[in-house]
Amino acid sequence: MSELPQPPEPALPAADRAFPAPERALPVPERALSVPDLAERFAARTEGMTASEIRALFAVASRPEVVSLAGGMPNLAALPLDTLASQVAELVARDGQAALQYGSAQGVPVLREQITEVMAAEGIRAHADDVVVTVGSQMALDLVTRLFCDPGDVVLAEGPSYVGALGSFAAYQARVLHVAMDDDGLVPAALTAALDRLRAVGQRAKFLYTIPNFHNPAGVTLAVARRAGILDICRRYDVLVIEDNPYGLLGFDGQTYPALRSMDPDNVIYLGSFSKTFASGLRVGWALAPPAVRDKLVLAAESATLCPPTFNQMMVSRYLAGHDWRGQVKSFREMYRERRDAMLSALSTYLPSGCRWTYPDGGFYVWVTVPAGVDTKAMLPRAVSARVAYASGTGFFADGLGSRQLRLSYCYPTPERITEGVRRLAEVLAAELDVLHTFGTPDRTTARPGSRTDSSARRGPQAPTPDTA
Amino acid sequence: MSELPQPPEPALPAADRAFPAPERALPVPERALSVPDLAERFAARTEGMTASEIRALFAVASRPEVVSLAGGMPNLAALPLDTLASQVAELVARDGQAALQYGSAQGVPVLREQITEVMAAEGIRAHADDVVVTVGSQMALDLVTRLFCDPGDVVLAEGPSYVGALGSFAAYQARVLHVAMDDDGLVPAALTAALDRLRAVGQRAKFLYTIPNFHNPAGVTLAVARRAGILDICRRYDVLVIEDNPYGLLGFDGQTYPALRSMDPDNVIYLGSFSKTFASGLRVGWALAPPAVRDKLVLAAESATLCPPTFNQMMVSRYLAGHDWRGQVKSFREMYRERRDAMLSALSTYLPSGCRWTYPDGGFYVWVTVPAGVDTKAMLPRAVSARVAYASGTGFFADGLGSRQLRLSYCYPTPERITEGVRRLAEVLAAELDVLHTFGTPDRTTARPGSRTDSSARRGPQAPTPDTA
Repeated sequence: MSELPQPPEPALPAADRAFPAPERALPVPERALSVPDLAERFAARTEGMTASEIRALFAVASRPEVVSLAGGMPNLAALPLDTLASQVAELVARDGQAALQYGSAQGVPVLREQITEVMAAEGIRAHADDVVVTVGSQMALDLVTRLFCDPGDVVLAEGPSYVGALGSFAAYQARVLHVAMDDDGLVPAALTAALDRLRAVGQRAKFLYTIPNFHNPAGVTLAVARRAGILDICRRYDVLVIEDNPYGLLGFDGQTYPALRSMDPDNVIYLGSFSKTFASGLRVGWALAPPAVRDKLVLAAESATLCPPTFNQMMVSRYLAGHDWRGQVKSFREMYRERRDAMLSALSTYLPSGCRWTYPDGGFYVWVTVPAGVDTKAMLPRAVSARVAYASGTGFFADGLGSRQLRLSYCYPTPERITEGVRRLAEVLAAELDVLHTFGTPDRTTARPGSRTDSSARRGPQAPTPDTA
Repeated sequence: MSELPQPPEPALPAADRAFPAPERALPVPERALSVPDLAERFAARTEGMTASEIRALFAVASRPEVVSLAGGMPNLAALPLDTLASQVAELVARDGQAALQYGSAQGVPVLREQITEVMAAEGIRAHADDVVVTVGSQMALDLVTRLFCDPGDVVLAEGPSYVGALGSFAAYQARVLHVAMDDDGLVPAALTAALDRLRAVGQRAKFLYTIPNFHNPAGVTLAVARRAGILDICRRYDVLVIEDNPYGLLGFDGQTYPALRSMDPDNVIYLGSFSKTFASGLRVGWALAPPAVRDKLVLAAESATLCPPTFNQMMVSRYLAGHDWRGQVKSFREMYRERRDAMLSALSTYLPSGCRWTYPDGGFYVWVTVPAGVDTKAMLPRAVSARVAYASGTGFFADGLGSRQLRLSYCYPTPERITEGVRRLAEVLAAELDVLHTFGTPDRTTARPGSRTDSSARRGPQAPTPDTA
């Protein structure tokens, strides 16, 4: 190694014509570039990326004296940290060279095998070749939208829908048409009506985005009796189905429901996640897709992140193989059920008459409808002042609806805090209703000057935050 | 908790008109949906996502008998796995609740502080508020392109350029105009010429994408004397600069160069990575951007992955705080320098006359130009048969150039394997030249039928693979 060759001649091709002559003196800049000029050069899609108006409130809401019923953070208190610590130490010591190295864009093969076993609990029979591991299922959602949506394309989604999905749809300039739900989930006739309406104007939907189980934010589950019908409608109208299922194993009675994917493998892209059943901070999710879509997903994933973190995939794989993960999910379920019970009990005890709410049998959320005249978004700062936070309903619609709704999450606080939080919320609501009774119910069509009820006309979702995942 | 309230009334708003009436009998499907129909519904951008023709070869190239000089995998043999194992075990045991939980989309604050210290080595003075942590710098590249590029927009990049960048540009349907390099990196006059050419047709470039230090794949460094001039040109023509710097700390003499960002903070977005200085499998990179861009980056990141993995960020943070990471980078440098020496020595010893190559003083790569008439892409299968693999030059151009070039990486194999690999490559080249001398040099404009020299006309980059990162 002591004899190094002399530097060779330049070997670079002239992609453009190269002028290796002495550099010319540069003239004085024509104009200085100021920061606003950067923004002028953004792509069209970037305009639609706006910060949530309630972001500042979330900062306040994270103060310890505020009971936050706003977030969607899983409660990890039950995780076996000692077991995990020794598993991860062993992973580094024994397989560190592989775990700390680049991997394939599709994901670690052994984990993809294990994911097919996880999905089997909901009736899915799949091959590991059709699984693409992603950085949380949010990335799968982003990539699916990237693959299918040109600007202006229409996607169907439940109303309300997951705020992170609405964010991805907005990022690719897709338009969202909401489809109504009831206590049994997506309403089939409403789906048909929406598709007929599109067809009447010569359009079709690129896909239906749906969260069939323990819906975020609605807290309801698509009735099993409706599932075949929904899939049949999508087939007839030539609409792909994106089934997002982060909460499917968190049914409070241990119940699971047949995945849409299990009933129509060729027309459903299934999205799964370990964020709610293991650890959100590892960001390991996946997509299961028909081969033609899978191939494109892998290419899109390469261009997005090269590959998902190998380390995290191997960590999840070891956890699944070396720990009673089903037992762990059971203890998560029991913890969340106790919190759900606390919330429903408190809602029933404290909320003023005229409020209604859903009755979740799994997952993280209750969806509350408040009496006419109350605007949940306008009320939020007053709620935070009263030391309780929630997510106002408008964030879950792309079309400005939701101002009479709010989402409460019971996943993170203790039952005692949940009860106290609901009590505070009830007081805030009672005060709002007092004001309304004194000054009259504002009429949406003739909103008084200064009234905030017109905020329901705001377009676009509130930007997603991890806290509302 | 024993008294559960009765299920309340339905509380969901009618986003669409809901018809909770009994479901109508569904008519027979109009047509069955077959898999090809899925592809018909892809967005326009998805068409451009094609698998690399050499992907199959990479599978073969990973066989142990093949010396792969094709990949860009860092060599992690020197990592202190025992130290890491105890650090990560402690992370889980002590801070598991935070490390396994969602975090902010911008990244863990303490790591962002530490990143500013890492960047200080190259003269960058930055505030942690302007750092956005990403899933590898590939994600930063993807998001920057997302923010700035509408379909058809022009970006400038060195010719050749990083294959993963070309993949991201293609994913957003941006057009790439290559700018020539020489042994001192990007040629200022060529940059001016490219910008003038654009201006003449009423266009401007959204940004210049450049890898100033230890270029991938070219193995050259932008001369310090050129840096201010390049920045000045970009200012004059109102072009943003994307500075991609994964290898900057891997200068073989411990030398660093002033970052472009340090010389023009308002007009440069800087991308950094821990993939080459610590561990690629953790996928921790970052962008440093002016505030107006940073805000949009955070929003785009939220919609892409919600947040980067908290666990990985805290792991990197502990490593930086608790280990002599600078000493570790030094030992990486020394390992890579020994391999670089082995490669240059072997090239000088074995390669047939008429070959030229660059002389890297840092990083992972040597860029080789072969004699006229040899097509490196057509030759690749024969090289793999001879048990040596490389990356053919066409993958590093968006415009079909590069068929006389190839990239050799010396980062991963041992010096002995590198020497043997180059020896095999030299034999393959000699055989190609023999054939050429016997049958004559194919003329590009009158390629013989069956000749593969027309492969240089292929458009678009080879799809990135982690192996070519």
